[in-house]
Amino acid sequence: MGADFDGTLPYPVSSMRIKRGQVLTDFGQVESTAYFLNSGVVEIGILSYQTLKTLDFFFTGEFVCAYTSFLTQQPSDVRVVALTDCVAEVVRYHDLQIAYSQSLTANYVGRIMNEQAYLRKVRREKDFLTKTAEERYNDLLKTHPDYIIQIPVNKIARYLGIHPESLSRIRKKLNS
Amino acid sequence: MGADFDGTLPYPVSSMRIKRGQVLTDFGQVESTAYFLNSGVVEIGILSYQTLKTLDFFFTGEFVCAYTSFLTQQPSDVRVVALTDCVAEVVRYHDLQIAYSQSLTANYVGRIMNEQAYLRKVRREKDFLTKTAEERYNDLLKTHPDYIIQIPVNKIARYLGIHPESLSRIRKKLNS
Repeated sequence: MGADFDGTLPYPVSSMRIKRGQVLTDFGQVESTAYFLNSGVVEIGILSYQTLKTLDFFFTGEFVCAYTSFLTQQPSDVRVVALTDCVAEVVRYHDLQIAYSQSLTANYVGRIMNEQAYLRKVRREKDFLTKTAEERYNDLLKTHPDYIIQIPVNKIARYLGIHPESLSRIRKKLNS
Repeated sequence: MGADFDGTLPYPVSSMRIKRGQVLTDFGQVESTAYFLNSGVVEIGILSYQTLKTLDFFFTGEFVCAYTSFLTQQPSDVRVVALTDCVAEVVRYHDLQIAYSQSLTANYVGRIMNEQAYLRKVRREKDFLTKTAEERYNDLLKTHPDYIIQIPVNKIARYLGIHPESLSRIRKKLNS
């Protein structure tokens, strides 16, 4: 591949604007769309014993959707919500399947995207096992300082898996 | 793809026997090999604050390796160990890259494998958020009853993320 891949995608891509707070995919819906974020932040949430937990945040330059539902075409057990206004490029499941059936480029891009999705997922799992909440908050500050100020504290705390009060303590410590 | 894929893989595959306890990939090594398990169980472990934690078990019919290291060719932060004697089919990183550069089938198979790896990883993450240790132990008993009796209790407890004493209580409750 490499030299032969000219960057033209073998499936239709459209652009859309998403409003802050908009639910892109709700619990129980089958995911039909993958979003590539040109700007903005999207949260993936899951219900854990009646409590909403944050599985992940997705930022500018990343693909996001209810990916398990997208791959399996089964109802989603996660909710996809825009945390800020977003601009996204949009790919439809149906268009992607057609491309996969006939295009080397589609399968090449699909493979790489899946590898990235996997690496991302594993990195977050390992971060939880090997870093403190403070270290993970520092990582977030370093990689996405522009967005952190736009996201409510309680949502950042949920992303870190800690209480908002603990996050306040971490912030105070960093500012002192 | 579908009808055109005759099951012939476009890269060399060899077979190997692995002894119980054998370390396939250690911390710090770069993963050069992916294993498809014809039989046996393999554990992926990670160090979390000096303590060995179990990221996952892999069973007959599944691919296993230090996959992040395999994809990135960076030193592994996980250890891959055979929990039982295993028979595996083996694919080398280098052979796979050659195939990816020239074969639609390779990219197709690679994409599907990555999707499966992703789905598996997410399922385990969600299980931790939405199921009790007892429910997860029951799942393990249902899906892999043959292997559970071969794996030491402390390793199963580590897989479930609980103390061995808690697992003993769960087992007693199930047997009573």
